[in-house]
Amino acid sequence: MTQPAFVLVRPQMGENIGAAARAMWNFGLNEMRVIAPRDGWPNPRAAALASGAGRLLDSATLHGDVADAVQDAHYVFATTARPRGMIKPVFTPEAAMRKARALTGEGRKVAVLFGPERAGLENDDITRANGIITVPVNPEFPSLNLAQCVLLMGYEWQREVTERAGETLEMAGTEPATVLDVETLAEHYERRLEQAGFFFPEEKAPHMRRVLRNLWSRMPLMRADVQLLHGVLRQLVRGRGGPE
Amino acid sequence: MTQPAFVLVRPQMGENIGAAARAMWNFGLNEMRVIAPRDGWPNPRAAALASGAGRLLDSATLHGDVADAVQDAHYVFATTARPRGMIKPVFTPEAAMRKARALTGEGRKVAVLFGPERAGLENDDITRANGIITVPVNPEFPSLNLAQCVLLMGYEWQREVTERAGETLEMAGTEPATVLDVETLAEHYERRLEQAGFFFPEEKAPHMRRVLRNLWSRMPLMRADVQLLHGVLRQLVRGRGGPE
Repeated sequence: MTQPAFVLVRPQMGENIGAAARAMWNFGLNEMRVIAPRDGWPNPRAAALASGAGRLLDSATLHGDVADAVQDAHYVFATTARPRGMIKPVFTPEAAMRKARALTGEGRKVAVLFGPERAGLENDDITRANGIITVPVNPEFPSLNLAQCVLLMGYEWQREVTERAGETLEMAGTEPATVLDVETLAEHYERRLEQAGFFFPEEKAPHMRRVLRNLWSRMPLMRADVQLLHGVLRQLVRGRGGPE
Repeated sequence: MTQPAFVLVRPQMGENIGAAARAMWNFGLNEMRVIAPRDGWPNPRAAALASGAGRLLDSATLHGDVADAVQDAHYVFATTARPRGMIKPVFTPEAAMRKARALTGEGRKVAVLFGPERAGLENDDITRANGIITVPVNPEFPSLNLAQCVLLMGYEWQREVTERAGETLEMAGTEPATVLDVETLAEHYERRLEQAGFFFPEEKAPHMRRVLRNLWSRMPLMRADVQLLHGVLRQLVRGRGGPE
């Protein structure tokens, strides 16, 4: 059965990558993706700590950034310890893995982003996510490490698969947009809005871009919607000059 | 509120005791009991690793054996990785912590036993338990360590005591758009697309309008999104002439 991909974003210590692999394999998850690991790849210390779960590291794919790592995904979760002031649905681990199970049951690809050990995910990473997962830890002492966070998601995934097997949803004829579809759409709008002088003043431009990215990734877009929104944009700028 | 006591039975490495304390405190649990730790008590390595959760070690009670450690308890769970061929009820972590919550709610004391790192609990320890907790791990790779096992129990305890709220939306100070907001937005786009010749050929125009309307109304738009989408449209058509 298809599983969610667990994506380690810029992990630092090899030991933690190995521990994350063990945590995944404890619950039968084996699709790991690794983005820009600090100490290069493959990492011997990761392999040493993974021991029996070393095959996850062998088959892990290596990526340059989040956009590349999740381009085949239809739904991306970001795990964060604290609220980020973004308008995105926030899930408990249980609700998130229930949704992940439903989506994979429909043939859609789900990815879960885990941030680097110390700092966690950056806002730019999170803007690419459709939903946020927050573990309800003690607010006085939120100290989950990377492997523990992976462990809890794996545990909830396992619970979904074993305890609630058989529940799937029916979907109408059209296909959901992939992350790549949405990314291409976002870039199309960004490029045209850039040309139209939308991102002004300069110092606010990064924030405005993020807000717009967040908007796209939060919408439950189907492929047909994406095509329509490309068409809307093309038509609006037609006659303004400049190449398509 | 009364909590279950987490009882570490003959723990070996101080680091693991410290990590267990951290795992507990992540979920607001602070009652630790320690039975015959291999390296004596207090244990400086446990304290070093516990860092922010050091107070759990300071207030932990030290015991000679299981009978002594759980003598005030009304119900004792034993965590085991494998079945032990004993006639006892076996719980998932979730079911166990639900029962623990119900019992403490009635004023009864609950204890949870965690075995030493390598070997786990001995049968003699388990005979003193009323129920067994087994985490449903991958049978090919059951490799939970002490702190991870503590973490999962703490997580389930926390889930029991806090509301099981599933999905909430992180609103970032904005309200959901009203039907009127979305209607106004749809009309703005329709008007501009009409002017741009989007609804062509004529006989397909009603269908195209409907598809676009459907798109807007299907999206979970916030007021801030609606404002942004108005701004996007205004900027794209600026310079094309015609009144705003």
